[in-house]
Amino acid sequence: MKKRKICFVITSPIHYSRSKLLLKELKKHPSISLQIIVGGSAILQNYGDIVSVMKNDGFEADEKIAMVLEGGSPIAMTKTTGIGIMEFATAFDNLKPDIVVVRGDRYEVLSAAVAASYLNIAVAHIEGGDVSGTIDESVRHAITKLSHIHFATNQKSKQRIIRMGENPKYVFDFGSTDVEFAALNSYEVSEKVINYLGVGDAIDTKKPFLIVMYHPVTTEIDKNREHAKNLLEAILKVGIPTIWFWPNIDAGTDDISKAIRSFRETRKPKHIRFLKYLPAEQFLGLLKKCSCLIGNSSAGIKECSYLGIPVVNIGTRQSGRMKSSNVADSGYGVKEIIKSIEMQISHGHYKKSLIYYKSGVSKKIVEKLAGAKLYTQKKFFDQ
Amino acid sequence: MKKRKICFVITSPIHYSRSKLLLKELKKHPSISLQIIVGGSAILQNYGDIVSVMKNDGFEADEKIAMVLEGGSPIAMTKTTGIGIMEFATAFDNLKPDIVVVRGDRYEVLSAAVAASYLNIAVAHIEGGDVSGTIDESVRHAITKLSHIHFATNQKSKQRIIRMGENPKYVFDFGSTDVEFAALNSYEVSEKVINYLGVGDAIDTKKPFLIVMYHPVTTEIDKNREHAKNLLEAILKVGIPTIWFWPNIDAGTDDISKAIRSFRETRKPKHIRFLKYLPAEQFLGLLKKCSCLIGNSSAGIKECSYLGIPVVNIGTRQSGRMKSSNVADSGYGVKEIIKSIEMQISHGHYKKSLIYYKSGVSKKIVEKLAGAKLYTQKKFFDQ
Amino acid sequence: MKKRKICFVITSPIHYSRSKLLLKELKKHPSISLQIIVGGSAILQNYGDIVSVMKNDGFEADEKIAMVLEGGSPIAMTKTTGIGIMEFATAFDNLKPDIVVVRGDRYEVLSAAVAASYLNIAVAHIEGGDVSGTIDESVRHAITKLSHIHFATNQKSKQRIIRMGENPKYVFDFGSTDVEFAALNSYEVSEKVINYLGVGDAIDTKKPFLIVMYHPVTTEIDKNREHAKNLLEAILKVGIPTIWFWPNIDAGTDDISKAIRSFRETRKPKHIRFLKYLPAEQFLGLLKKCSCLIGNSSAGIKECSYLGIPVVNIGTRQSGRMKSSNVADSGYGVKEIIKSIEMQISHGHYKKSLIYYKSGVSKKIVEKLAGAKLYTQKKFFDQ
Amino acid sequence: MKKRKICFVITSPIHYSRSKLLLKELKKHPSISLQIIVGGSAILQNYGDIVSVMKNDGFEADEKIAMVLEGGSPIAMTKTTGIGIMEFATAFDNLKPDIVVVRGDRYEVLSAAVAASYLNIAVAHIEGGDVSGTIDESVRHAITKLSHIHFATNQKSKQRIIRMGENPKYVFDFGSTDVEFAALNSYEVSEKVINYLGVGDAIDTKKPFLIVMYHPVTTEIDKNREHAKNLLEAILKVGIPTIWFWPNIDAGTDDISKAIRSFRETRKPKHIRFLKYLPAEQFLGLLKKCSCLIGNSSAGIKECSYLGIPVVNIGTRQSGRMKSSNVADSGYGVKEIIKSIEMQISHGHYKKSLIYYKSGVSKKIVEKLAGAKLYTQKKFFDQ
Repeated sequence: MKKRKICFVITSPIHYSRSKLLLKELKKHPSISLQIIVGGSAILQNYGDIVSVMKNDGFEADEKIAMVLEGGSPIAMTKTTGIGIMEFATAFDNLKPDIVVVRGDRYEVLSAAVAASYLNIAVAHIEGGDVSGTIDESVRHAITKLSHIHFATNQKSKQRIIRMGENPKYVFDFGSTDVEFAALNSYEVSEKVINYLGVGDAIDTKKPFLIVMYHPVTTEIDKNREHAKNLLEAILKVGIPTIWFWPNIDAGTDDISKAIRSFRETRKPKHIRFLKYLPAEQFLGLLKKCSCLIGNSSAGIKECSYLGIPVVNIGTRQSGRMKSSNVADSGYGVKEIIKSIEMQISHGHYKKSLIYYKSGVSKKIVEKLAGAKLYTQKKFFDQ
Repeated sequence: MKKRKICFVITSPIHYSRSKLLLKELKKHPSISLQIIVGGSAILQNYGDIVSVMKNDGFEADEKIAMVLEGGSPIAMTKTTGIGIMEFATAFDNLKPDIVVVRGDRYEVLSAAVAASYLNIAVAHIEGGDVSGTIDESVRHAITKLSHIHFATNQKSKQRIIRMGENPKYVFDFGSTDVEFAALNSYEVSEKVINYLGVGDAIDTKKPFLIVMYHPVTTEIDKNREHAKNLLEAILKVGIPTIWFWPNIDAGTDDISKAIRSFRETRKPKHIRFLKYLPAEQFLGLLKKCSCLIGNSSAGIKECSYLGIPVVNIGTRQSGRMKSSNVADSGYGVKEIIKSIEMQISHGHYKKSLIYYKSGVSKKIVEKLAGAKLYTQKKFFDQ
Repeated sequence: MKKRKICFVITSPIHYSRSKLLLKELKKHPSISLQIIVGGSAILQNYGDIVSVMKNDGFEADEKIAMVLEGGSPIAMTKTTGIGIMEFATAFDNLKPDIVVVRGDRYEVLSAAVAASYLNIAVAHIEGGDVSGTIDESVRHAITKLSHIHFATNQKSKQRIIRMGENPKYVFDFGSTDVEFAALNSYEVSEKVINYLGVGDAIDTKKPFLIVMYHPVTTEIDKNREHAKNLLEAILKVGIPTIWFWPNIDAGTDDISKAIRSFRETRKPKHIRFLKYLPAEQFLGLLKKCSCLIGNSSAGIKECSYLGIPVVNIGTRQSGRMKSSNVADSGYGVKEIIKSIEMQISHGHYKKSLIYYKSGVSKKIVEKLAGAKLYTQKKFFDQ
Repeated sequence: MKKRKICFVITSPIHYSRSKLLLKELKKHPSISLQIIVGGSAILQNYGDIVSVMKNDGFEADEKIAMVLEGGSPIAMTKTTGIGIMEFATAFDNLKPDIVVVRGDRYEVLSAAVAASYLNIAVAHIEGGDVSGTIDESVRHAITKLSHIHFATNQKSKQRIIRMGENPKYVFDFGSTDVEFAALNSYEVSEKVINYLGVGDAIDTKKPFLIVMYHPVTTEIDKNREHAKNLLEAILKVGIPTIWFWPNIDAGTDDISKAIRSFRETRKPKHIRFLKYLPAEQFLGLLKKCSCLIGNSSAGIKECSYLGIPVVNIGTRQSGRMKSSNVADSGYGVKEIIKSIEMQISHGHYKKSLIYYKSGVSKKIVEKLAGAKLYTQKKFFDQ
């Protein structure tokens, strides 16, 4: 029997981390031949090149695609999407996969979905149907409308995907692979690693510490620097040792980076260490131990719901997402942020929530990918 | 008061024809500054370069964009989309429109919608919510999910757009501009024009004649040549003088063109004349007079519903579209096609249908474009 | 010992034909690992997709690259070059060759040379140093200045390359692989093949016949259609059965194609058959038998010098090339062309010329490619 | 009389600075209509966006082109070239200049030259014929072979251009516009400006200080970080206050930046201030005052020859350039660098050299651009 060729697309370091279990299941499935394309910020040193990390984990990239336009601006993001389509087209045309698997809502992901659709390759999409802020909100649903098989991470999202006209037979809610990975991970992060990487003062992870993950909001493009300054100010005032991850590559990233660099230069903050990337296991090992996650990352909404980590979620980036009680929403003001952090720290860890968790999600997805009847011509499913 | 800059994107000759009234209204509106970008097959000689046609009508292109990859193949279509995004990005970034107006479901249109979205420019989409075959079905809805203002052409489509999570306040059904144009057009086409253009025998348009408009089906990429051969065979057998329009530029176009060329070479058909493009008024003048339109063009579904022209609609390309009684669906078999044509000819013209018609649609669209409150951040509208 | 990875780039059908012996030598060399990238018009059906031809000959493409922009215009040619660079960059980055081998002066070739140079890969260039008309004249020398190893086809060209500042140790004149292939080829073309392919009347190749190969001149972009019409007129008047090859893909190609199509439609020429592509052996088998080659192809200058075929070389495209006595230059006028053809036919075949011929050229090139010490940093060689 | 449309291409901040006089002359010439395209690193915040600087100087960009791929790697540089060609093609096709003026040897410049050539637009090239290290050495001469009018900066370069087969009638040596600008500039830089910009300790420019301009060497891609570390070490040991400019955008830039960041983090150097960009006048004001320029910038070779500034020129980047006595070449070793700096400081300023200087160069270039007979078809000029 001919194996089904399944091409997994990885375009950011975090994206790899969250897909690891899935990749392992894909690799070992007897009727699947796994292809991997790595591109976007996943192969940029400045964001944490994951090709060597992957090699250590036993995965090889079939193709590496440099596609990110410089500038951290809307136009850079736009052209990257165009370049991505051209490049994925050639890659898919040469690899000839039966299914292309994409996840999330980033522009490189849209590129892959567009390329596969036009090449009459079935597209499987993980994490569709969620609601959020930024341009991701538009793009996520556009990807849904280009995809043939949908793996939502929760019931509400599944219902939204169906509502958008997708065939219910191809819409599944097996839970979140991110959360599954977080649930299974038992790695204990070492202080040495943390303090070997990045810049800033050393952090003692045996004492209370915070994590910040703050990404640009593409639809508030003129405000990112100011908002980042507010957050830096708040973290400085709170005074608890903090591990701060540099922003992802979305439009506005340079504004946030500049805010950080200028802050470091002029305020010389003690007790803040800035990291670019941690391999998945180490990141989760670190996350489990932190007193509070602050920022606007979906990790606060998803992984932390299961781990019970208190989260201060700032601004609109995650607005609309299904949230557990561990999340305290905050506006962009310095005082409001400080108040929320203090409240969360005084509360301490939350009870484990299962809103995004189901066991065996990666296995179930891979079974569907291996066995689902494939089709090309989509048809709006009128109810 | 600063005028609102509205950028209209034209990427195929037919697209221009159908948008003419709209363009006139946009141009004369006192609070609108009209920008026009022309690209895709609209600037390719082989498909009927419309830049000079536009000039005659009083419109200038602010930017011309060469973007079509050669090959008439899925990969050509895919890369064209990528090139389009890169090019529209630069154009929009330099023109800085407040709204980008796109229509339909073609890949160049997806390019423009993606570029505008990522640049935080409001996108207005005409003809969303329809259901059809080919990749257009996926792309049309993806464009909807990237757009901010929607001008559906009928109630059903309006409801689908809302169902997909768009804000009902920004979804309008003013009817079809194509049909409005067809309704208002009183041009009498001259035989001289027809027989001056194109190749093949002269057609006497005062006697009964057929029109064929047959485009590739991108999701049946291996069948286009065979299906075209069937249709050629059927038309040959029917024996009535026929004006046949070359296919549009979608993947599969070269297969259809080859079928035609080979057919002309080996069968030397009498009474079939092949045309590339007719300016809108002339095309409609011709359409009004024809005994039956055969193929898979949306003109059969839309313009012909109002004009009452009998239509034989072949295959899946228009499957799902709302149709009036003038349309007889047919499979790809030679005999079936012949039978359908004979039936339609014996029936003769139909009564005017209003399913796609409303009066004043172009004016109403332009009023909305001029006055609507613009927004960038989309939000899935949960019901 | 690690094999040297040598990547051969093929971007047009004729390019493949002329490199066949070279490819065979590369493939069988024990210390070379051959990589092949096929792109440009070499994978376009309309110009004679050579991938299946290659397969029959035992060669596999490591990568196929769709890169040709539609339009047959200067802007199409320009953007194709840009797309080519992006695509070759990814391909080379993934294949990691030690040497990239390119030949000639086309824009896709410039793409490959630019990409390899910037990636610090040694570039070997075949056919540098020649002088001709069109943009090829500029591009050929630009490629020389980007290349590290030069295989000129004649002494004059070798001297020009050295004069341009290239290191004489890396400039070789082993003769022309095209001519070597022509000299070794003993294929007898069958009439059946000729008359199975293409369009137009059947040609009896046992009686006298002409061949036309007429390509656009990119630097006379407004004249190509007119010049092609003249040539068609002349061929019609001469009245001898003619096999006419469609033009290559350079800017102006659509103008020539249109001239041909319109001529066929209105003049219904007898005794002209139009072909797209013949595999190398068959083409040479045909060439050997023809009474005169007319047009502006380099085959008239190179292969025909050895084969002694009378050639009428029209216009500026080959101006400056070293020519043997078999070539009669002609202007673009109908009468002048007719006169030249008549003169050449009355002369009959010429004596074999060795200006482009040396034996064993392919083997010698491959030995150099296998053994030459490679370098990256170029240095203008002051004399 | 119709004005000649001359399109000046600016792709890096330094490039603008050095072309300022030329731009002023172009703008005021009565028979020239000036068009400006700004792209590449010239519009990237991180390298010193010059659009606002230009505005202050009275210049408007007709088009802005985002084209730089992220990564600071060979593949980023390669793809940027490809993107550049596509984008310049559209821009030139819309602006329709009579001449495109480019200068230097960067990849964005190659893009513009390729695009203009293929579009049959005359290319004027400033600074051809020089010899240097890195890929620039190849690219500079490739641009020469694509150009129609040449403005060398010195006799040797003029002779090389002619030797490469260019028509001597179109090769001029009017001297260097960079040096002309340096010679005319009388700006006194203020300490406040210097210490307001950039990061690191304040510099007292009334006391002795050094300037470092150290760019990546693309053909020594694995060594850039190590070489930068050596230089940092040397500068630290020398101990004199130093203004260090961040590297340009060439492949290897990220390696140098990382070396700097890591050095700042671990060694906390006193007396080194890091700047991104200074407007031309201020930069020259600063340069005049410095005790020694260290690195591998062409400013050390050109501007400093006239200004008499002692220069330590490290490594291969400028190898082959014509140099005056103010330049001391050095290898990459820490000790060697230190020794060279000490030697240059003890020597002090040099006598003004005129090897690159001629008066009135900008005016003369503009006169030629306004009056030269233009041609498209190039022809190797055999001697």
